[in-house]
Amino acid sequence: MRGVVCTGNSIRLDRNLPEPQILPGESLLRVRLAGICDTDLQLARGYMGFQGVLGHEFVAETLDGKRVTAEINNACHTCDTCRASRQNHCPHRTVLGILGHDGAMADLVAVPIRNLHKIPDAIDDRRAVFIEPLAAAFRMIDQATIGLGTRIAILGDGKLGLLCAWVARTSGAEVTLVGKHRAKLDLAGAEIQTVLLDQTEGLGRPFDVVADCTGSASGFATALSLVRPAGTLVLKTTIAGEYDTNLAPVVIDEITMIGSRCGPFPRAIAALATGEVDVTPLIGAEYSLDDAEAAFQAAAARGARKVLLHVRNN
Amino acid sequence: MRGVVCTGNSIRLDRNLPEPQILPGESLLRVRLAGICDTDLQLARGYMGFQGVLGHEFVAETLDGKRVTAEINNACHTCDTCRASRQNHCPHRTVLGILGHDGAMADLVAVPIRNLHKIPDAIDDRRAVFIEPLAAAFRMIDQATIGLGTRIAILGDGKLGLLCAWVARTSGAEVTLVGKHRAKLDLAGAEIQTVLLDQTEGLGRPFDVVADCTGSASGFATALSLVRPAGTLVLKTTIAGEYDTNLAPVVIDEITMIGSRCGPFPRAIAALATGEVDVTPLIGAEYSLDDAEAAFQAAAARGARKVLLHVRNN
Repeated sequence: MRGVVCTGNSIRLDRNLPEPQILPGESLLRVRLAGICDTDLQLARGYMGFQGVLGHEFVAETLDGKRVTAEINNACHTCDTCRASRQNHCPHRTVLGILGHDGAMADLVAVPIRNLHKIPDAIDDRRAVFIEPLAAAFRMIDQATIGLGTRIAILGDGKLGLLCAWVARTSGAEVTLVGKHRAKLDLAGAEIQTVLLDQTEGLGRPFDVVADCTGSASGFATALSLVRPAGTLVLKTTIAGEYDTNLAPVVIDEITMIGSRCGPFPRAIAALATGEVDVTPLIGAEYSLDDAEAAFQAAAARGARKVLLHVRNN
Repeated sequence: MRGVVCTGNSIRLDRNLPEPQILPGESLLRVRLAGICDTDLQLARGYMGFQGVLGHEFVAETLDGKRVTAEINNACHTCDTCRASRQNHCPHRTVLGILGHDGAMADLVAVPIRNLHKIPDAIDDRRAVFIEPLAAAFRMIDQATIGLGTRIAILGDGKLGLLCAWVARTSGAEVTLVGKHRAKLDLAGAEIQTVLLDQTEGLGRPFDVVADCTGSASGFATALSLVRPAGTLVLKTTIAGEYDTNLAPVVIDEITMIGSRCGPFPRAIAALATGEVDVTPLIGAEYSLDDAEAAFQAAAARGARKVLLHVRNN
């Protein structure tokens, strides 16, 4: 079969991969469409040392033709962490296309049956590719107090920033998206206030919650400068390595910081099916799996929207 | 009157201070006993640029003879922050003996009447000096989920670490105190497990909550290495300045970090009055206010317990 293989420092399309090994409890799926995530670009540059088939945002079919996607954390479901309902943190887990398990940028993928979610007819393939990143955005609603009237700033006008802005809006929050690019901010739509990063100084510290989706080392300091005392700072993006940080304001102002990663698939599916969140503005260029290398180049371009890889011709 | 004055880079006893200015809403108190806090030692070295009378842990008498102590944040009670019940974060606040307001290491101190708390007869002066730091330790119970069976590690065997250990124990938590000094760990008593810092490597990451009371830059990394995924890290101590920090594990492991500062005086008073927390092991050397300079030297010595300054001869 075909598959996009991460070699540890680059990616290439392999046309002669063996079919995936099917582990106990797993099901084989025919992939229809996959999305390229910033994490895939980082993996291609050596992040996590991953070697194998990439792809963790996808739409596939079961062998009897049902459209599905799957959660990406493959937990053991037997250890103390799993039995405490923290399966996404299982120390024995593999992660689809990220850690110890081949992913979905291939003709076939094997995933744990319990990780599958059916995709309603109301969500077409292009939008369904966003279920995984949209679920990650919804995760912050589980963790922080974000509701009617909450004043929240989302830092970063990339794809995750926009998803988080829309998710916060579904909860009734007053949402301000802060970014460097007017064109990207304008994708947010009329219900989201937008501010250019270099115009935040006059704002003061009005925000109950600030979510850092910048992926940059300066994002944390900016977030601290905008959140009110006793407010909440949600960390959605990681920065590899150590960098200079001053945590004293976290103590003095009693800030709550919350690391936030993978989220609830059912909530994301419902939001897409009802149109509560419309991810259409984020859909970018579309390629055949055969042109995966060109697709990765397009995804790495500054300001690229979500690049899609068509695996089956539907 | 007499008072211990912080000059910005040292302290001295001044025997000819004017009586304190009494602001609207304030009451004049005769000080009986004051404690020297690590914050006082930092202020004496220039922290916060404070100049004025030190002292924020104290027992005093009202002019009609009632024993009292006082909360240390003097809020405006009119701004948005105060009206949102976050008076301890009032941007216009002064802080007794720390920021813009003379403190209690003096014959007389003026404090806002609404900040006063009566001290029950069951708490003698020496123990009552611990009401303020004990309240700060109780603050983490307001903020984090610490209850029956919670596995919590307290990092740091200084005075704040021991207070936090005892406070966590009052909530039914399983408490482990981690520190560098066997003699200080042994003050914790039979209900607290103790581990030397250099023997934590074999522990794994068993703790639901880790409270960092080390005041050292390495405390944060140690805390992260001990807290379980999706656990809580309480930051009780500040480190001035920037230092290398890796926040990526906070995101990947979805850690909640909570900055924690001043706490509930009534809870601390109740714990001392009933004997629920016995601070006796932390009481150190006692000096007359006239010997304040020697007292500060004693307080700065490695491993010093709480040094007390007797202001009135009771």
